[in-house]
Amino acid sequence: MKIAVVGAGAVGLYYGSLLQRAGHEVRFLLRRDYDAITRSGLTVTSPRGDFHLEGVQGFRDSCDMGTVDLVLIALKAFANQHLVEMVRPLLGSATALLTVQNGLGNEELLADAFGGDRVLGGVAMIGVTRGEPGVVNHMALGSIRLGEFSGGRSVRSEQVAAMFGAAGVTCEAVADLRKIRWEKLVWNIPFNGLCALTNQTPGTLLANPATRCLVAEIMDEVIAGGNAQGLSEPISREYREEMLTSTVQHTSDYRPSMMVDRLEGRPLELEAIYRIPLRYAAQQGVPMVRVGMLNALLDLGEPVHP
Amino acid sequence: MKIAVVGAGAVGLYYGSLLQRAGHEVRFLLRRDYDAITRSGLTVTSPRGDFHLEGVQGFRDSCDMGTVDLVLIALKAFANQHLVEMVRPLLGSATALLTVQNGLGNEELLADAFGGDRVLGGVAMIGVTRGEPGVVNHMALGSIRLGEFSGGRSVRSEQVAAMFGAAGVTCEAVADLRKIRWEKLVWNIPFNGLCALTNQTPGTLLANPATRCLVAEIMDEVIAGGNAQGLSEPISREYREEMLTSTVQHTSDYRPSMMVDRLEGRPLELEAIYRIPLRYAAQQGVPMVRVGMLNALLDLGEPVHP
Repeated sequence: MKIAVVGAGAVGLYYGSLLQRAGHEVRFLLRRDYDAITRSGLTVTSPRGDFHLEGVQGFRDSCDMGTVDLVLIALKAFANQHLVEMVRPLLGSATALLTVQNGLGNEELLADAFGGDRVLGGVAMIGVTRGEPGVVNHMALGSIRLGEFSGGRSVRSEQVAAMFGAAGVTCEAVADLRKIRWEKLVWNIPFNGLCALTNQTPGTLLANPATRCLVAEIMDEVIAGGNAQGLSEPISREYREEMLTSTVQHTSDYRPSMMVDRLEGRPLELEAIYRIPLRYAAQQGVPMVRVGMLNALLDLGEPVHP
Repeated sequence: MKIAVVGAGAVGLYYGSLLQRAGHEVRFLLRRDYDAITRSGLTVTSPRGDFHLEGVQGFRDSCDMGTVDLVLIALKAFANQHLVEMVRPLLGSATALLTVQNGLGNEELLADAFGGDRVLGGVAMIGVTRGEPGVVNHMALGSIRLGEFSGGRSVRSEQVAAMFGAAGVTCEAVADLRKIRWEKLVWNIPFNGLCALTNQTPGTLLANPATRCLVAEIMDEVIAGGNAQGLSEPISREYREEMLTSTVQHTSDYRPSMMVDRLEGRPLELEAIYRIPLRYAAQQGVPMVRVGMLNALLDLGEPVHP
């Protein structure tokens, strides 16, 4: 399959490298890592085994990439104003788009521009960070769940899931994309924001009784907000306990993407991870008070918008 | 009047210096500033005029101070475990205790040890910080409202208010001490905590629309918590607007005491300013959700208690 990776940060480089290793033709749209990767290839360090890829196809401009069968989108959502123009040159008549970006609103943006039938959304549960240019450090986890933006199971979503599976990624196609988006927010909303705000890791937040309780309360708010959206079935209370346990076991020392963004002076994905979920919840009469407070505290550190 | 000042940080040194300048015999219990003040006196810088006092009586141990007519207590509340033993040697048969410490629980501590009849509480609206040893920088405001711990107006509270008034401090005796304590919390709870957490001044918090809204929401929670305590009359919504306006006008660039405490590596007054008010509000069925979240976030940075 011909695959373009748009937004080649840690997540895009990691999954793209696995797909190339599995024999697919992968083209990466690169910025920071262009020189290193086109000269020396791509190195992945991982508890599942390090590997190095030579002959990685890197591009600076999507106009040079040609059309593909699948566009894998892992762009930071704060750069979404550029996304449509980056994707447009990649589209043939049957090209599918799979966004594994954080938060809500990304599928809607693509559907508005290119039609909802092209759009799949995926939720990656993964701890991965960039190292030196040309190096990606996979820390933990890595599974993907994905589904059609228009809802329901499809042959296409099963095929994409099978493709990831053959590349070594645990991947499941689901019928209710909105449910898995909200489930991911149950982790992202507390940990991305609290870690960015306090400059502490998830494990530290869970070791302090007061902030452990706060994390659980925020998760409850997100579950209530999600369950007000008419999901196919509600997110359960057990899911919260699984998230807390899994975090202690697997991502205790992980620095969530928003924490890294703040440490490195980038904007934060507040719109996708906080503001759109807050609006969707408020529209259904669910206030998410602590989530709103966290959004306000994170907004304080952001550059002033015009 | 013979007055002992216990807890000679910025607030204690400032009011003590005004009382000494007005002719009272003031004895200061000192730690950090002992050498500087006993050698060279006490300097106050203030928009109302700088002044310098010679012949300031400083002590390292309250056992050496003798008994007094009034003990003015401005100790940081996180050091309250030492307060009773610091105060005991100062008490004659009619000695009154006036605590102008932050938050709730300070009068109760003194009343439990020495009887409620001795205890007055005062609320200082003031911006003042310590400079070099022997120097206090008064920035803004400075008024005190005070009342009997046992409630009601008293000749004694009127006399103490008159004493401050004669020393140049706008001071009023009130019948309902609990009401003025909660009114002060309407300012302290949002600004002390948010400034300490974000390392931003009140003016910056009020210039950002998201955090300005958060400050107002926290003030609403505190007003609801206070008004559930059976105050003599409720704290009004207008009081919130007065606080917001006054902060912009007078203490926009002021660093609240908790922000200074964190910057200088001291513990925070979380018990007095957050935990006791949270308990009192919860006992009346008022949850103060944002206040609880702020307390948890501040607790994260504190040393672990045994």
